Amino acid sequence: MGSVAEFDHPYVPRDLKLPGFVPNSLPTYIIVGVYLSASLLVITAVWIGSGRIQKISKLDRTLMCWWIFTGLTHMILEGYFVFTPDFYKKTTPVYLAEVWKEYSKGDSRYAARHSGVVSIEGVTAVLEGPFCLLTLYAIAAKKSYRYVIQLAISLGQLYGTIVYFLTSYLEGDNFAASWIYYYAYYVFANSFWIVIPTAISVHCWKKICAAIQDQDQKKTKIR
Amino acid sequence: MGSVAEFDHPYVPRDLKLPGFVPNSLPTYIIVGVYLSASLLVITAVWIGSGRIQKISKLDRTLMCWWIFTGLTHMILEGYFVFTPDFYKKTTPVYLAEVWKEYSKGDSRYAARHSGVVSIEGVTAVLEGPFCLLTLYAIAAKKSYRYVIQLAISLGQLYGTIVYFLTSYLEGDNFAASWIYYYAYYVFANSFWIVIPTAISVHCWKKICAAIQDQDQKKTKIR
Repeated sequence: MGSVAEFDHPYVPRDLKLPGFVPNSLPTYIIVGVYLSASLLVITAVWIGSGRIQKISKLDRTLMCWWIFTGLTHMILEGYFVFTPDFYKKTTPVYLAEVWKEYSKGDSRYAARHSGVVSIEGVTAVLEGPFCLLTLYAIAAKKSYRYVIQLAISLGQLYGTIVYFLTSYLEGDNFAASWIYYYAYYVFANSFWIVIPTAISVHCWKKICAAIQDQDQKKTKIR
Repeated sequence: MGSVAEFDHPYVPRDLKLPGFVPNSLPTYIIVGVYLSASLLVITAVWIGSGRIQKISKLDRTLMCWWIFTGLTHMILEGYFVFTPDFYKKTTPVYLAEVWKEYSKGDSRYAARHSGVVSIEGVTAVLEGPFCLLTLYAIAAKKSYRYVIQLAISLGQLYGTIVYFLTSYLEGDNFAASWIYYYAYYVFANSFWIVIPTAISVHCWKKICAAIQDQDQKKTKIR
């Protein structure tokens, strides 16, 4: 073994140097299963809890489920990545380190600590994460900023995901261990943060425009 | 000369390889002067032109001046950079190539074609630039989307500038040829795209919340 073992990681490009790398100790179905189960649990709790709010629409309850899911993903999963540069060296099965060792098979820039990825994840975890939780409250309490905060975070998520894909494209798009990881992790998992933020942005954009138009017409009538 | 001349550029880090580099042919005061004069000309034209719009506030006229300035900067200056990877090789004094040869003294990642910088500039030039011009029309015609579009672009500019600074910080923040270029180009010039988008975001956020609150109260009264 010796110095050869040091580079014995499953990631692409193969010449990526990760001294001290320790392979995943949990199998893929456990890593993905825990994330999906925990998410489902939290989403179910918010769906049931939000049902007790008076005069709340099913759309708003669905949005609350999205915001808790994406907010906790940003703060816990992505937050751990941002503040743990050496996650790939963890020897004991720390679940969050397992997540990023696994995801790096779809995009090795996570293990390689790519500056663009770390910057985007930093903004997402530190700024957007907490604001997602505030959004949950804003929708539940029908705060006047409920649409504008949803639009702001959604546009941030879109911007981040676009730059995330663009930087990879500009550097040759060769960071996945196989086409399965490429499509499952890099393309499919991230596509949720393109499709859903786009839909929410359009929804909030329309709501805001309608309210401004109402106000403009009211002012015209007063004159 | 020979192969040594190939790396004879004024940028930092010194080991940056730019084969075929041709130094600036225009002096700094011409490069900066043309940008400031052209901007002043366009701003003056929009200020005068917007004065002919009925019942428009001075604040909205000021905003229109900002949007034409930032929009043309995005589309022309940053657009040229995005689509001209070899700007540093230009032998004849192409003004826009001169701009980026000069600015690279404050941040050599432009000459080095850093993927984070190119991605952010791509989004800025191709998406945000044209939307800035649409904003000009939205304000002039009092369109109901005038606040939400200003907020969307401003948040995009903020996101881009934050990631622009973060990527440099994470890579050691050593891309300026001297502290003068660092503060004049990298810090001072970019600070406008932190301060002004923040102010506009706050302004639009408040306007939108007020309109939503109005609508919420109206609905409560009807019930």
